[in-house]
Amino acid sequence: MPVGQLPALATEIRDFLVDKVSKTGGHLGPNLGVVELTIALHRVFDSPEDRILFDTGHQAYVHKILTGRQEGFDLLRQRGGLSGYPDRAESEHDTIENSHASTALSYADGLAKAYALKGERRHVVAVVGDGALTGGMCWEALNNIAASDRPLVIVVNDNGRSYSPTIGGLASHLASLRLSPGYEKVLDLVKESLGRTPLVGAPLYEVLHAVKKGLKDAVAPQAMFEDLGLKYVGPVDGHDFVALESALAKAKRFGGPVIVHALTQKGRGYGPAETDEVDCLHQSAQFDPETGKPLAAPGRSWTAPFVEELVAVAGERPDIVGVTAAMAGPTGIEKMRAVYPERVFDVGIAEQHAVTSAAGLALGGLHPVVAVYSTFLNRAFDQVLLDVALHGQAVTFVLHRSGITGPDGPSHYGIYDMSILGVVPGLRLAAPRDETTVREEFREAVGVSDGPSVVRLPTGSLPADLPAVERLGEGIGAVDVLRRDGSADVLLVAVGSFAHLGMEIADRVAGQGYGVTVVDPRWVRPVSDRLVELAAGHRLVVTLEDGVRAGSVGSALDQALSDAEVHVPLRDLAVPVGFHPHGTRGEILSDLGLTAQDVARQVTEWVAGADADHTAPGSLPADQLRRPAR
Amino acid sequence: MPVGQLPALATEIRDFLVDKVSKTGGHLGPNLGVVELTIALHRVFDSPEDRILFDTGHQAYVHKILTGRQEGFDLLRQRGGLSGYPDRAESEHDTIENSHASTALSYADGLAKAYALKGERRHVVAVVGDGALTGGMCWEALNNIAASDRPLVIVVNDNGRSYSPTIGGLASHLASLRLSPGYEKVLDLVKESLGRTPLVGAPLYEVLHAVKKGLKDAVAPQAMFEDLGLKYVGPVDGHDFVALESALAKAKRFGGPVIVHALTQKGRGYGPAETDEVDCLHQSAQFDPETGKPLAAPGRSWTAPFVEELVAVAGERPDIVGVTAAMAGPTGIEKMRAVYPERVFDVGIAEQHAVTSAAGLALGGLHPVVAVYSTFLNRAFDQVLLDVALHGQAVTFVLHRSGITGPDGPSHYGIYDMSILGVVPGLRLAAPRDETTVREEFREAVGVSDGPSVVRLPTGSLPADLPAVERLGEGIGAVDVLRRDGSADVLLVAVGSFAHLGMEIADRVAGQGYGVTVVDPRWVRPVSDRLVELAAGHRLVVTLEDGVRAGSVGSALDQALSDAEVHVPLRDLAVPVGFHPHGTRGEILSDLGLTAQDVARQVTEWVAGADADHTAPGSLPADQLRRPAR
Repeated sequence: MPVGQLPALATEIRDFLVDKVSKTGGHLGPNLGVVELTIALHRVFDSPEDRILFDTGHQAYVHKILTGRQEGFDLLRQRGGLSGYPDRAESEHDTIENSHASTALSYADGLAKAYALKGERRHVVAVVGDGALTGGMCWEALNNIAASDRPLVIVVNDNGRSYSPTIGGLASHLASLRLSPGYEKVLDLVKESLGRTPLVGAPLYEVLHAVKKGLKDAVAPQAMFEDLGLKYVGPVDGHDFVALESALAKAKRFGGPVIVHALTQKGRGYGPAETDEVDCLHQSAQFDPETGKPLAAPGRSWTAPFVEELVAVAGERPDIVGVTAAMAGPTGIEKMRAVYPERVFDVGIAEQHAVTSAAGLALGGLHPVVAVYSTFLNRAFDQVLLDVALHGQAVTFVLHRSGITGPDGPSHYGIYDMSILGVVPGLRLAAPRDETTVREEFREAVGVSDGPSVVRLPTGSLPADLPAVERLGEGIGAVDVLRRDGSADVLLVAVGSFAHLGMEIADRVAGQGYGVTVVDPRWVRPVSDRLVELAAGHRLVVTLEDGVRAGSVGSALDQALSDAEVHVPLRDLAVPVGFHPHGTRGEILSDLGLTAQDVARQVTEWVAGADADHTAPGSLPADQLRRPAR
Repeated sequence: MPVGQLPALATEIRDFLVDKVSKTGGHLGPNLGVVELTIALHRVFDSPEDRILFDTGHQAYVHKILTGRQEGFDLLRQRGGLSGYPDRAESEHDTIENSHASTALSYADGLAKAYALKGERRHVVAVVGDGALTGGMCWEALNNIAASDRPLVIVVNDNGRSYSPTIGGLASHLASLRLSPGYEKVLDLVKESLGRTPLVGAPLYEVLHAVKKGLKDAVAPQAMFEDLGLKYVGPVDGHDFVALESALAKAKRFGGPVIVHALTQKGRGYGPAETDEVDCLHQSAQFDPETGKPLAAPGRSWTAPFVEELVAVAGERPDIVGVTAAMAGPTGIEKMRAVYPERVFDVGIAEQHAVTSAAGLALGGLHPVVAVYSTFLNRAFDQVLLDVALHGQAVTFVLHRSGITGPDGPSHYGIYDMSILGVVPGLRLAAPRDETTVREEFREAVGVSDGPSVVRLPTGSLPADLPAVERLGEGIGAVDVLRRDGSADVLLVAVGSFAHLGMEIADRVAGQGYGVTVVDPRWVRPVSDRLVELAAGHRLVVTLEDGVRAGSVGSALDQALSDAEVHVPLRDLAVPVGFHPHGTRGEILSDLGLTAQDVARQVTEWVAGADADHTAPGSLPADQLRRPAR
């Protein structure tokens, strides 16, 4: 296709994206920004012989369209339909799937090493956002790539705001590169762009500073990357086909590691995205394509009561500070920033630094609240273990989107936190069940003064409040009895978001003639003594949790029962170890058998089986059902 | 003390260090390199009002001497004695303890933020090695620190070889800074140093290249750090008191974030360390102070058979490549590099990149063997989960120093791998018990073609081979029966390094009249069906493992028994969740009750209790001892 026809193709693709994503929901802004870049990449490089790797992957929609998957967009992010990320099962043009941010350069380094060793002359291209460059993995990779002479093209897709405006020294440096006077046209674009979306916390002063710095750097605008030993091409207008293809072709010919710095505009070509001040319609539910407004008002989220409480506690306690990693909006911590701007720190896509700098804040006498997604805390396990817990520092983690989350698929399920944090000495972890317990357990968490505390919030909308019929104990370690029948056959331990499910299950099991106690353990790490005592009075314990089964809360309770010589049999229901596909939360839970109907049937079988095993009809005294020697 | 008297003090401290460390073992080279630097830091800054943070912490011996702990060096790294790292329990001058590398800048950023918010005018100084700067956390921290205007002094202790020679683009950049012609004296030092310890894989060409680059950079040698917005002071001779104090005082006065680049010589002032080509006596067991040679020949290590097998397999299979993270020596992978230099990649202190670049190598058709310490893989949990396992890539991890390791203390215990890796779908994990099984299980691991495989090697010396009396099954999933008595009372599942302990326990329990089967499960993830079948024929299962109890192999077996409706009671013995102190491995295991005597007594009680519970003397049929409904 002649270059002259490409702008029309780009327009067609943008219309298609807005049309489809308005019906399914998905990542819009990032994809609108990379239309020309993706077309140019596919024209200059020969995929799949050449490997194009998209960091993070939510900006691969255009790539999917160009590789024959436009038909799939009607079922985007739906069960059995097109993934919202690259997916090797969909196409040979996809090499890496939906990992977390900042990984593509490392993959690319490995691929380039492999091709060099095998003598294969294939090009490796990694496309990485300026936001993802703030992640430490990128530094580790750049340090290695720069020291090599293997061909590898790094395209920095610089829109100044991968999620929200990119922060830090690197962002300022990129801004200075953008302002290199050798690129008048680009300069205009950037000036315009800077006027529209100023850097976080960067008033006019910093923009002016960047301009001044840019003039100095005009001598060698590529300084930082060249200092590391990387060839630098750019900056180039990421919406100019001729400029893009020229830069990419130059990089392809170079034969060593090279950075192409492309300036793009997030949300480009679609008014509501271009003008959205939050995040250029980064990710959206179904919306009206005319206005960009969501079709349905979202329900009240689990995040809402947390944020209200956070702002309230921050008002009461000057030692409370907020920390997030490029997720100020989705975690709601921006609402604290609006009130206490100097007490909230967004460290960029840098979970490790978020955690260890929080340990530093705590060492300095403050109490940090670190708000991140559950899935992203996996990045900072070691920092939670050593930098926070070993140092006995009081840091509160509020994990968002925990459990089975849905459309983002297996890389974003927040099912690991309860298991891997279970090995951390002194750590307390709460799983609230409703709005009231979110507020209460968050307050208990910031009351912990000698180690890490964690509150995990599910995804989706808040359910109705589910009051306890009885609270056993007080504060951390207290458990809430949600239902108690006359006969104590089954103790159903329903963790956090599964409390409501537990109540439905209890109704069904009780319908079969068995008495059920439902308990919300509230704090699942460490195991509460109250829970052990409660279990001792039942014939069967069933645990139910929205986390992976290996190292589950159920298994921890089983160990605690064993240690206390409480020999009640226990069955633990949890998310099986495995990579579960994308779909709605309800669909995935149904696939896993975690529905009221399925679980109730199973529990009824177990409790009936317990009777049969002992050939004792009716309800035996619990001690006769004790497991020996356990 | 007048500056003129300081060199004599430095000499005295070096003599003290050599004398003491020769008797106790410990980190020598790094501490000999920072004598003048540490003295200067304490003269310019007012600790503990000002906070001096040592990254990694093994170079804090001089700091300990200067803060009144010289008496403690007789018991350095021994149970109840002085820690080999900073330790807040020892002194108010210690702020952070023994974390992993590359954390200090993040702590410092947090502390600086806290002091700024609270209006406290205290200085924060982070001392970080050039090697640790290759870790991604440093990048994340620098990016945040550079964007701030808070006072914070970063001292880069640049010896060109924090563990072994530092690698990558950053190292070249630092080398170019070193060569700034404005510092003739320093230049000589560095030229000498480069001649003595060339950069990894850097022949004369690269050194010349660095010189050329240095000349260019002479215009602005601080380019990279300044590009990020950091003030740069240096390079300064790290053994010249006047120069050091002048640079540090300037940095202290500056009032914003500033880097002081100090050039030091690892092992300085002690001939055997200066001339040690491996790592300047980085860490040593007891040695002869005259010669620097170890007093006792170390026993054959667990690493030795792995390396021999690795080199052999690499000879058979051209797809085998090696990856390590600044640990080529201790993991033995340098022996593969000696034979196949182009097939081994040392990525620097950068575990995340090690893992994800290995995934890239695998995507490129190779089979990487990643050799790291167990404790350091905690840094890359997310990368193992998503970048390797989700992508179904065959990467073999060989974890060194797993389990209770000893003198390095709680930050270095390799007790988490089996638990946290238990949540990773498709991952296989082997725990060899002796030399033969190291070889065999490593070969099985590199035979896995569809996902991650892990072989965990204990610390210490190899025990005698312990042959199986029977193997049940073949390959991965086969289990080794090490002992089988006439009556099947107790099944003792002894994992890896605990196999020998298991045999001792069995002798004692059998002495009390109970029959014991001892089994080595070989592959502990996933749980072998053979193990479940074997358990079904016993009255009590006891698991014994050198890993943390939460999410233990024992708990996984318990879940598998439950799923298979095998209702044999199980007791799991493992390392309790907690931060256990430094000491010898034997001392720590003894403190934890993981000795033959203690465990045998407990097992005997349990099996006797099982009898008593059922008021049935002697050996009941196993089915009467089943746990109901489990």
